[in-house]
Amino acid sequence: MVLMPVLPPALPAPVADALRQAVGERELLVDPDRTAGYAVDWTGRYAGATPAVVRPADTAQVAAVLAICAAHGIAVVPQGGNTGLVGGSVPLAGEVVLSLARLREVGAIDPVDGQLTAAAGAPLASVHQAAAAAGWAYAVDFAARDTATIGGTVATNAGGVHVLRHGSTRGQLTGIEAVLADGRVVSHLAGLGKDNTGYDLAGLVCGSEGTLAVVTAARLRLVVPPDHVVTALVALRDVADAVAALGVWRRALPGLQAAELVLADGLETVCEHQGLPRPFPRGAGATARAFVLVEVGGASDPTHEVAAAMDEVAGLYDVAVATDPGAAARLWCYRERHTVVIGEHGPPHKLDVTIPAASLAEFCAEVPARVPRAAPAARTWLFGHLGDGNIHVNVTGVDPGDVAVDEAVLGHVLELGGSISAEHGIGTAKRRWLTRARSPVQVEVFRSIKAALDPAGILNPNVLLP
Amino acid sequence: MVLMPVLPPALPAPVADALRQAVGERELLVDPDRTAGYAVDWTGRYAGATPAVVRPADTAQVAAVLAICAAHGIAVVPQGGNTGLVGGSVPLAGEVVLSLARLREVGAIDPVDGQLTAAAGAPLASVHQAAAAAGWAYAVDFAARDTATIGGTVATNAGGVHVLRHGSTRGQLTGIEAVLADGRVVSHLAGLGKDNTGYDLAGLVCGSEGTLAVVTAARLRLVVPPDHVVTALVALRDVADAVAALGVWRRALPGLQAAELVLADGLETVCEHQGLPRPFPRGAGATARAFVLVEVGGASDPTHEVAAAMDEVAGLYDVAVATDPGAAARLWCYRERHTVVIGEHGPPHKLDVTIPAASLAEFCAEVPARVPRAAPAARTWLFGHLGDGNIHVNVTGVDPGDVAVDEAVLGHVLELGGSISAEHGIGTAKRRWLTRARSPVQVEVFRSIKAALDPAGILNPNVLLP
Repeated sequence: MVLMPVLPPALPAPVADALRQAVGERELLVDPDRTAGYAVDWTGRYAGATPAVVRPADTAQVAAVLAICAAHGIAVVPQGGNTGLVGGSVPLAGEVVLSLARLREVGAIDPVDGQLTAAAGAPLASVHQAAAAAGWAYAVDFAARDTATIGGTVATNAGGVHVLRHGSTRGQLTGIEAVLADGRVVSHLAGLGKDNTGYDLAGLVCGSEGTLAVVTAARLRLVVPPDHVVTALVALRDVADAVAALGVWRRALPGLQAAELVLADGLETVCEHQGLPRPFPRGAGATARAFVLVEVGGASDPTHEVAAAMDEVAGLYDVAVATDPGAAARLWCYRERHTVVIGEHGPPHKLDVTIPAASLAEFCAEVPARVPRAAPAARTWLFGHLGDGNIHVNVTGVDPGDVAVDEAVLGHVLELGGSISAEHGIGTAKRRWLTRARSPVQVEVFRSIKAALDPAGILNPNVLLP
Repeated sequence: MVLMPVLPPALPAPVADALRQAVGERELLVDPDRTAGYAVDWTGRYAGATPAVVRPADTAQVAAVLAICAAHGIAVVPQGGNTGLVGGSVPLAGEVVLSLARLREVGAIDPVDGQLTAAAGAPLASVHQAAAAAGWAYAVDFAARDTATIGGTVATNAGGVHVLRHGSTRGQLTGIEAVLADGRVVSHLAGLGKDNTGYDLAGLVCGSEGTLAVVTAARLRLVVPPDHVVTALVALRDVADAVAALGVWRRALPGLQAAELVLADGLETVCEHQGLPRPFPRGAGATARAFVLVEVGGASDPTHEVAAAMDEVAGLYDVAVATDPGAAARLWCYRERHTVVIGEHGPPHKLDVTIPAASLAEFCAEVPARVPRAAPAARTWLFGHLGDGNIHVNVTGVDPGDVAVDEAVLGHVLELGGSISAEHGIGTAKRRWLTRARSPVQVEVFRSIKAALDPAGILNPNVLLP
């Protein structure tokens, strides 16, 4: 839903003065021409307005900013790369924007533990680069890597294509530094292999979408990149066969690190719009309804294991295998180009859900039938992370704020025991759905925790909790 | 410290009546002869007394019990297998014992996701058995597996020998069912691959040692057991070489699933007391100061990778390799028999710490020097999980409550930036240390969270928080 940006009143002069003193004259932006870019998300679906953008340089300045805002009861939206998809990082109710963009340091890698500390504003890609330069890899990866920041990935417990192997961001986090709503700093960045001394603050703040604390740095576990990677595009009879195949591959291929789902109509449109060759122009593959992009890593070449695992799969119509990076990248295009092709059909209504394996085929069949009943001009696009049961439902031909579409999709998700947010979070977009997704007691517990850590409610007050 | 069990006053009759109504006449134990066994830990170091032991049969009964206790302001100690090492599951201040022992169900395994739901009182071993019967494995394992319960492993975020590969209990947890202090039930057991709908309650309750909620069930991720396992006992010049070797193995062996440290004097005493053959009776191995038990799994036989990885290690004096289970078990004896041999030297003072890799050698050299300065009759025993930097420090020849020993060991741990509790938790034993291990702000945040979830402070009130 695009909200009209009504300019909120300016900050009281003493507050503005205190913030300038904290971060320096140049880093408090109040000119609407300069703040406007911070007030709208990259999709343009969530547009607000802010009296000021504050750009602290380090943790001490973040603490000073929050102490000032807390003292004056001023609400704050923490912002990293602003690449979120649920309106969680823009000032929709006139909040001050606290940009973490200047905290960009990526520290040295511990050679035994394979960990590094990254500041909140460091782009995800900069962590990938630092890891790669030392022969390591960071497991969390997704398309917005050049803009999305580590702080944002922690705040949203970001996922991506390798979750089935390594887990989401919370699984990589061995420590955190964060500033509480009143400016107190919590720092626990030793990254010890085991540390059972009190409650898991890092895991709690991770995924809390800026409502409990402002992340300033994260200690991250790296992984050893595989020496060999085999990539295969597998053509299957239908989604049910793809789900069953996942069960086989998970057992047979310990190096399975991605299993991405694409459907026949999406693949066809991607080929057409992007001028890509059909991957299976003839034979049974041409009649397949579901395609899975499988990536398997190994210390030794896993080609034979992959081939053997394919032999166990029912409903397998054809396989295209890539063993060099160029060929693998060409296979990934069939999955990755979905977003741009969908965008050519108008601004999509984006939903991101998890479905239990047993219901995934039913969901993929039902959504294209249910959505047009709610919005006759709608076209649905389904693709996503089969390995996690995570389907990205994109709907074009509708208003991006169409609540009937939400009802058709998310209502069905809840009927099937799925999650209304797999990896994007609740943000502003799904706040009213939280009470349908989680029990009243669970939401009460969330509120108790929020009140305990942010009693004045100044941290991202219009996000997550309804 | 052994506390004298002074019998607390009996429960008020209306409370006892209400509890009997909730769980049945037979499952409220008030006879001191019957409750005594629940009031002391298995090591005998922590002995208390309780007016009653309540043994609910299911989650609804747990909820009823807690609602009754909350209404009357009665403090409760949740108890699983009572195998903890820090006095966290016994009624040291006259609390009611809430035994989860009757909630023993282990559910079916989802064949695609590889997950199961286990009730709190299910012994860890029963989960191993259920997993193995279906061709899976559960990653958390340790010696007390037949008695320790799933609820206890969740409450303490239990670790064990495979943490370096799969993480601690928190890393296996995909959902939780728990009862809050006032009897409200939180249940989120769908175990979806991704689910970013609110705060991570499962991760927060995990490791909270019964102070935030009573775990009644857990949804657990299983792992695929490797088809091949190679076990090697590696003799190294010293601890510094062992740490460096870990760095090499972590990089070269993606299937590395255990790396356990044993020192020369401990190994010698184990061989002597248990009548085991010296593993390296001759040559350089006989002069080694540090030994690492390495376990490497793989879908294919990793023997060649293991051999190649050993070639890269400096200070490697000798290696004994086992490829069949019998030989592997014989190698594991050198590590596992430490506990029983130490016990023959009198009741040990047990400490469980994590040391950063860079300081591990220094710590292992310093502790045997520092402890006797604090307690001249002391003998120190060091062994543990090298892969996590987790050293179990056992001290014999001292009173198990000797605070000077704590100061000598834990004080040094803090100087080195380590953790005073790797995997055992804080419990009663290390409460007064929490404020030295975590900053004042962090302890304040812990208190805020405790107050939010258990405002009356009835859940395990004498554990974790000082």
